[in-house]
Amino acid sequence: MIPTSTRAGRGIRLSPLLGALALLLSMRPASAGPSAPPPTMDQILATSTAADWRRPDPENTLYMDFAAGRVIIELAPQFTPEHVANIRTLVRAHYFDGLTVNRVQDNYVVQWGDADGERGLGDARAKLPAEYDRSARGLSFTALPDRDVYAPEAGFIDGFPAARDGESGQAWLAHCYAMVGVGRDMPPDTGNGAELYAVIGHAPRHLDRNLAVVGRVISGMPLMTALPRGTGALGFYRTVAERTTIRSVRLAADVPTAERTDIQLLRTDTPTFSRLMEARRNRREPFFVQPAGHIDLCNVPLPARIDGKA
Amino acid sequence: MIPTSTRAGRGIRLSPLLGALALLLSMRPASAGPSAPPPTMDQILATSTAADWRRPDPENTLYMDFAAGRVIIELAPQFTPEHVANIRTLVRAHYFDGLTVNRVQDNYVVQWGDADGERGLGDARAKLPAEYDRSARGLSFTALPDRDVYAPEAGFIDGFPAARDGESGQAWLAHCYAMVGVGRDMPPDTGNGAELYAVIGHAPRHLDRNLAVVGRVISGMPLMTALPRGTGALGFYRTVAERTTIRSVRLAADVPTAERTDIQLLRTDTPTFSRLMEARRNRREPFFVQPAGHIDLCNVPLPARIDGKA
Repeated sequence: MIPTSTRAGRGIRLSPLLGALALLLSMRPASAGPSAPPPTMDQILATSTAADWRRPDPENTLYMDFAAGRVIIELAPQFTPEHVANIRTLVRAHYFDGLTVNRVQDNYVVQWGDADGERGLGDARAKLPAEYDRSARGLSFTALPDRDVYAPEAGFIDGFPAARDGESGQAWLAHCYAMVGVGRDMPPDTGNGAELYAVIGHAPRHLDRNLAVVGRVISGMPLMTALPRGTGALGFYRTVAERTTIRSVRLAADVPTAERTDIQLLRTDTPTFSRLMEARRNRREPFFVQPAGHIDLCNVPLPARIDGKA
Repeated sequence: MIPTSTRAGRGIRLSPLLGALALLLSMRPASAGPSAPPPTMDQILATSTAADWRRPDPENTLYMDFAAGRVIIELAPQFTPEHVANIRTLVRAHYFDGLTVNRVQDNYVVQWGDADGERGLGDARAKLPAEYDRSARGLSFTALPDRDVYAPEAGFIDGFPAARDGESGQAWLAHCYAMVGVGRDMPPDTGNGAELYAVIGHAPRHLDRNLAVVGRVISGMPLMTALPRGTGALGFYRTVAERTTIRSVRLAADVPTAERTDIQLLRTDTPTFSRLMEARRNRREPFFVQPAGHIDLCNVPLPARIDGKA
């Protein structure tokens, strides 16, 4: 027998979303007076309005369908216009259909493409310029209040985790969990988008400005993160049988409306998002005895909802 | 057909370990003159000596055996003495044998223990003090040269990623990938080590000083990270069938020598380790066009070798 107090602890409360949610939503309505404690993330999301959410442009939305389900990627042409254009060309030629996930390196990346080099690129280009950063001019940057280990400034641009250097005037996307980049050979101009990777572990931020980052997985990460790790060099699978087949990759714009996934993302350029960052910098859920007072760029949640549900 | 240059790019070079290793080891011996470029991590490891490595104390080493293989955990009694003592008591009573992994929350934690609350704790205690930090006095701290988002100072203590606050004089273990902690209920004294978790995603450093960290997985992470994600609240599995059974958990000290795993870990209090940190702060492998110049605490590799092999 285990004492009741221990059994009640079974849920472990590593993340206080549920128990705390029920408790707090009744105790501390976000509309309470000025003396009320700051709201939690769940309270903030519960009181968000339609204007706090956005639907990604179907021209920038990829559906990568596996037998097990759909991975959705939002592309970022404002950072990597030539790479995104090339990926659209490949996708519209059905280049990825029937290709495979070929590499799963633990705490690092999953990678997919043409493992056996059998497929031509068609109208797509084989080499592209190294789109590793760009001018920050014209971009709306929501700065994180905290310092960043890798960059002078970290924050969010159009819903993507990003970094900025005031001195050089440049901005770039950050290799956080779920970000999608373009594999390449040694010369920086050898990436073309036919081979892509997604980050599945602790953010490998040393890759920032060394590879072209083309977007972020906005739904379906577990379809890739739970794949068996490759036991070959760099996490490549040793045998063909280990690879997972990609049924198809399509642009949402090319998919009949009835087959599209209705996904919405919380905007990152709003007061609601700034309150959410603060709620995660200092957790007010009762589980926490020592709020952190800070947050790492890649720990800021980027909430999504499908068919209106979290 | 794909041009040769593209096919050569198939390896993608996200991590330059292999191609670069062969190239560099021939070009830039670590013993070269003072004008040679700084060595890469691989060069440093290749020239490490026996004194750079340590074997963890068998009294602080747990073997968690699954049908698929062995997970090895090094315990950290210098940070959580009462929790580690309680875990040893549980392990020696074979408490964990036949229990299961019950929760896999994507980009967060795996958690194991007595999902159905059927097992008594025997001689182990049900409640323990909140061992969330301790005096830094007497600890050898190898400071990371870079700033940390969460703590005044980050670095390594006895091979574990850790943080320190010069003002309060306290030190604590950091929730990096592979760190192992003790689940608890809301009151901070309700953890006892019967329910444990390991970090499988981007470091949830906001948990630092909110939970007792008892050690680190030093081998076998892919046996847990590739498990299917739970689809219930907080990543708990919805059905019993989804759980993965733990065959046994043993202290290495209690296992016959012939059945022990000969694991060695690179010491973190040596000039070799400091050189390794620098090699990762500024990657000299030819793949990198823009060395980061910094590194996050949780991105510093903690090399291990089994039977003398990496």
